Amino acid sequence: MMRIALGVEYDGSGFCGWQTQLQGRAVQACVEQALSRVANHPVSVVCAGRTDAGVHATAQVIHFDTESVRTARSWVLGGNTHLPPEISLLWAKEVDADFSARFSARSRRYRYVILNRWVRPGVLHRKVSWHHPPLDAERMHAAGQRLLGEWDFTSFRAVGCQAKSPVRTLLSLSVTRRGDFIYLDVHANAFLHHMVRNIAGVLMAVGEGERPVEWVSEVLHARDRTLGGVTAPPHGLYLVHVEYEPQSGIVLEPLLPEF
Amino acid sequence: MMRIALGVEYDGSGFCGWQTQLQGRAVQACVEQALSRVANHPVSVVCAGRTDAGVHATAQVIHFDTESVRTARSWVLGGNTHLPPEISLLWAKEVDADFSARFSARSRRYRYVILNRWVRPGVLHRKVSWHHPPLDAERMHAAGQRLLGEWDFTSFRAVGCQAKSPVRTLLSLSVTRRGDFIYLDVHANAFLHHMVRNIAGVLMAVGEGERPVEWVSEVLHARDRTLGGVTAPPHGLYLVHVEYEPQSGIVLEPLLPEF
Repeated sequence: MMRIALGVEYDGSGFCGWQTQLQGRAVQACVEQALSRVANHPVSVVCAGRTDAGVHATAQVIHFDTESVRTARSWVLGGNTHLPPEISLLWAKEVDADFSARFSARSRRYRYVILNRWVRPGVLHRKVSWHHPPLDAERMHAAGQRLLGEWDFTSFRAVGCQAKSPVRTLLSLSVTRRGDFIYLDVHANAFLHHMVRNIAGVLMAVGEGERPVEWVSEVLHARDRTLGGVTAPPHGLYLVHVEYEPQSGIVLEPLLPEF
Repeated sequence: MMRIALGVEYDGSGFCGWQTQLQGRAVQACVEQALSRVANHPVSVVCAGRTDAGVHATAQVIHFDTESVRTARSWVLGGNTHLPPEISLLWAKEVDADFSARFSARSRRYRYVILNRWVRPGVLHRKVSWHHPPLDAERMHAAGQRLLGEWDFTSFRAVGCQAKSPVRTLLSLSVTRRGDFIYLDVHANAFLHHMVRNIAGVLMAVGEGERPVEWVSEVLHARDRTLGGVTAPPHGLYLVHVEYEPQSGIVLEPLLPEF
């Protein structure tokens, strides 16, 4: 028995999310079917970050167990021939039996991309989030610094979130503008359900001038989801990096989409 | 009667091209239908660059005539409500009756985007062209300089091209790499049918080392399409800028997609 780690990129637009659901086409199901064809036996995969419907990934990481001997090249190229064109396997590597794409991850990074102009996107439909009132990226950045550190993020957590603890450590957060695009980059040990999109919603309210910078701290300390802003739409969100202990042999670079 | 110029952005993936054809969904037909709804009368449009099936535009320019008085904002936002999400109107401006989006254009710029890595794109499916053998961007750039100036571009012209003259002036050409992406930027007074994609095909053969740099001049001077390379696929191509005489009042900036 071998354990294989694998990098996956996908456009989440046409999927019900990573995880297989009762209804809809899941990225996970497509990847499992493709790898099963290569392995010649049913394959189950575990992922680093379960992205929601419409959310993309440039650097998802998964692992699976197999008894079939294949080269890294065969897992990747063979898998890709059985995948829809919006999903692409990027790399594969044999890992120790105790490696877990999910539990061995030290931290994750997400990028949230906002097109901030008065007309909606055309070319980047479903690849970015659109917000037409002008946003002050510097103000959003300043406000976001109030979330750094270890906190109870209940105010930024989806009502249905199933994590046992609402405590997470936000390691870095930056908001930058390039032309009409605003990039929100967040790095944390792990994320709660909807956490990035709820942070984006709160920072957009601040960036628009609807709320003061201090409001971010108020929302955080209230530990009450109903005080937060709207959940920002999924299309702007990308899982861009998962960090593992170096001894795992899985050392990755962030893959940041820019437009 | 008024003449209105209008900027249009679109993802050409799902269309049979700009121009209305016997079969398939054309960008032109969608735009005409949307503007007709805003104008309350049938609208015909003329474009600066008739893009092929699968080709995108960040900065297409069109004009049309109308007797309906509407603000620029109404043409744009009203039009967008009647357009599919892959097409977005960007701006509108009243122009003189002798302005033509096509004939007043002094020059056009296209960008061709190649993802150059061993695995195919996922997130950018149909947004970029994929080429897996390593390409030498500097060599492609050097080779491309041989096409600068006024030439008979018969070797780079589609067999069915309907332009009267095969002579065009290539004003600038550059090939740059950023990570796994190669950007080919071309600027000419006008382009023949498939000219950018045929230039891309020839430069990719040179970049791969399959052909020497001098081959580009050989192909050019032969004035024979059958000597050229393959026509590169449409998904990597973007119309990014149209330049008009400043007195027309239409002064635009290139809108360059980056990934």
